[in-house]
Amino acid sequence: MQNFEYYNRTKIIFGRGTESRTGAETAVYARRILLHHSGGSVVRTGYLDKVKESLKAAGVSWVELDGVQPNPRLSLVHRGVEICKKEKLNFILAVGGGSVIDSAKAIAIGALYDGDVWDFYDRKQTAARALPVAAVLTIPAAGSESSVSSVITNEEGPWKSSVNDECIRPVFSILNPEATFTLPPFQTACGVADMLAHIMERYFTREAHVELTDELCEGAMRTIIRNARRVITGGGERDYGARAELMWAGSIAHNNLLSTGRIGDWGSHAIEHELSALFDIAHGAGLAIVFPAWIRYNIKEDTPRLARFAAKVWGVDGAYYDYEQATLEGVLRMKNFFTSIGLPVSFEEAGLDSGKIPLMAERAVKFGPLGNFRRLDAGDVEAIYRLALK
Amino acid sequence: MQNFEYYNRTKIIFGRGTESRTGAETAVYARRILLHHSGGSVVRTGYLDKVKESLKAAGVSWVELDGVQPNPRLSLVHRGVEICKKEKLNFILAVGGGSVIDSAKAIAIGALYDGDVWDFYDRKQTAARALPVAAVLTIPAAGSESSVSSVITNEEGPWKSSVNDECIRPVFSILNPEATFTLPPFQTACGVADMLAHIMERYFTREAHVELTDELCEGAMRTIIRNARRVITGGGERDYGARAELMWAGSIAHNNLLSTGRIGDWGSHAIEHELSALFDIAHGAGLAIVFPAWIRYNIKEDTPRLARFAAKVWGVDGAYYDYEQATLEGVLRMKNFFTSIGLPVSFEEAGLDSGKIPLMAERAVKFGPLGNFRRLDAGDVEAIYRLALK
Repeated sequence: MQNFEYYNRTKIIFGRGTESRTGAETAVYARRILLHHSGGSVVRTGYLDKVKESLKAAGVSWVELDGVQPNPRLSLVHRGVEICKKEKLNFILAVGGGSVIDSAKAIAIGALYDGDVWDFYDRKQTAARALPVAAVLTIPAAGSESSVSSVITNEEGPWKSSVNDECIRPVFSILNPEATFTLPPFQTACGVADMLAHIMERYFTREAHVELTDELCEGAMRTIIRNARRVITGGGERDYGARAELMWAGSIAHNNLLSTGRIGDWGSHAIEHELSALFDIAHGAGLAIVFPAWIRYNIKEDTPRLARFAAKVWGVDGAYYDYEQATLEGVLRMKNFFTSIGLPVSFEEAGLDSGKIPLMAERAVKFGPLGNFRRLDAGDVEAIYRLALK
Repeated sequence: MQNFEYYNRTKIIFGRGTESRTGAETAVYARRILLHHSGGSVVRTGYLDKVKESLKAAGVSWVELDGVQPNPRLSLVHRGVEICKKEKLNFILAVGGGSVIDSAKAIAIGALYDGDVWDFYDRKQTAARALPVAAVLTIPAAGSESSVSSVITNEEGPWKSSVNDECIRPVFSILNPEATFTLPPFQTACGVADMLAHIMERYFTREAHVELTDELCEGAMRTIIRNARRVITGGGERDYGARAELMWAGSIAHNNLLSTGRIGDWGSHAIEHELSALFDIAHGAGLAIVFPAWIRYNIKEDTPRLARFAAKVWGVDGAYYDYEQATLEGVLRMKNFFTSIGLPVSFEEAGLDSGKIPLMAERAVKFGPLGNFRRLDAGDVEAIYRLALK
């Protein structure tokens, strides 16, 4: 087990009707804020209005900035930074999913910086301070509501890159599973793939003596898989219990508890980022394409761990007889699961142009080789894309 | 799933050599502190000296108060409160196990209160403020290093009672598994029983749709059981990996993550407190006596959950054919496990006077009926003690 620090200061407020507490929690920090959202379903469903009522009741006023898209854009972040500076706003409330929260985090860094906030995503600068950010979550997926991560797309490349720093961890997050009842099945499924990927990135480690976190990871993955089926294919769109399991699992998947003592991989995330940067597909869909290929490419690496994954998460018997066969069976079950919840598992199914593969492979290793379970250079990344063709 | 708030602000610093960071972490809060410990093994092993070196190097000075015993005493807490007030100390560092940390927390409350700190344990007052407390942990067991709990024994009764409030959660805790290499097997075993009990108190709930936390609880319990065997009966006293699993599991068992969305029971803890209050036996040993009896007494209550416990934690096959038989087999395996690691599982084995049972049963329900899985009055508690006679 590796030495580690574990510190997560996000206050989670979870359950039915909890959006009504937004105002009181916000008022602890500021009386005038930037209210950031997509302008889409959060408006149509009336959920944003509930949040606004709560803010009003607590005497909090706001400047509104909507328009956040999936794969949130740098140009909108620039506008948010401008508004915060001009209006002297010192607190950002994100109402939405991971894209909105990631965008809010980027604005929070940019508001306290004189140059272009992209410098932090381009690794020219290290984030050390940011305005406080909070979230009212509507899409369980990214785990951004209690994570230190923000992923932004710079349209000029297009480049997709991340910042990971304690200073952007939300001070509080409000999670009401009822807000997810109206999520389209495809979006729910993308969220599920994202949560599973966050756990898999931590799970696939070479570190010995990580039994506790292995057990926690496996239990969380099984819970996500079962409840995803209930919600998406079992008619449970409005099943509060199942929605609640998914929503809380999505936070725990990415709040770093599950990585304590271990060195995660994170290669697949970087490999996927090229798909969503170039083709603008949903991150979760991209992960469902990349992860099975990544496992197959690594079939000779630490096969006991890969076979354990197949056994404990996908119920593959016989994992102790032939590690490789067990792993392959696990990959098949994972692909079947993704397919069953409506996700593409190949370039072909997603209609992606395979001609871009060499370019994507080069771009993916821009900051150097990827991953820790196995270090991947451009050639490895290209081979993984090709394993995902069909 | 119940609505919940989850917020744990304790910064955990985990791993080899981490005691060397005590000084720097403390200096953030104070330059002169109360240093609280047992005066026992922590001195003999030289571990306290390492902590002192770190404090010195960071320019932190201290007033020392040793003498904490298992089942920490109110009289020593009173002395600590006096010292803090007289010397105007604003920070308390506990070096030791749960008893030392609980004692430090009591001092932290008392130092900001004009009356007797026992008022809070006797439920005449609600704790709302306390001096900041931090811990350097040497015994994985109580989970006090990141919990809101403190349990103190008032020798006059003797009474044993607890305070549970956010204000006493440690601001940081340092966990070096190497510090546990020299723990006697019996003390390691008591810690293991305590951790398991913390999880079982959360696990035995009537709440539906708590799959994620069920999975996390089960995984943590399995990890504790396996690694306890390795350390105590497998010759692994100095097995860093196994000691590390136990130490981190002990924190997670009691940091409230595992109770999110559920209503725990906590009856067994109150039933045990009478044993350790009257007979001064180790809390963990008392729990190994009480918990199997508590489960047997509740065999007709929510048998699917009890059988699931037997299946998932103790590997009992056939849990789906006959819930009661599966549960009883689980209880037998649990008792065998406790016996194998050197703990008593009955009044007889621990040499406790059964004549005190009616008195203990009356005292246990002093504040009203116990537990939530099933409400227990004095008659129920007496019956549970009697199930634990042999």
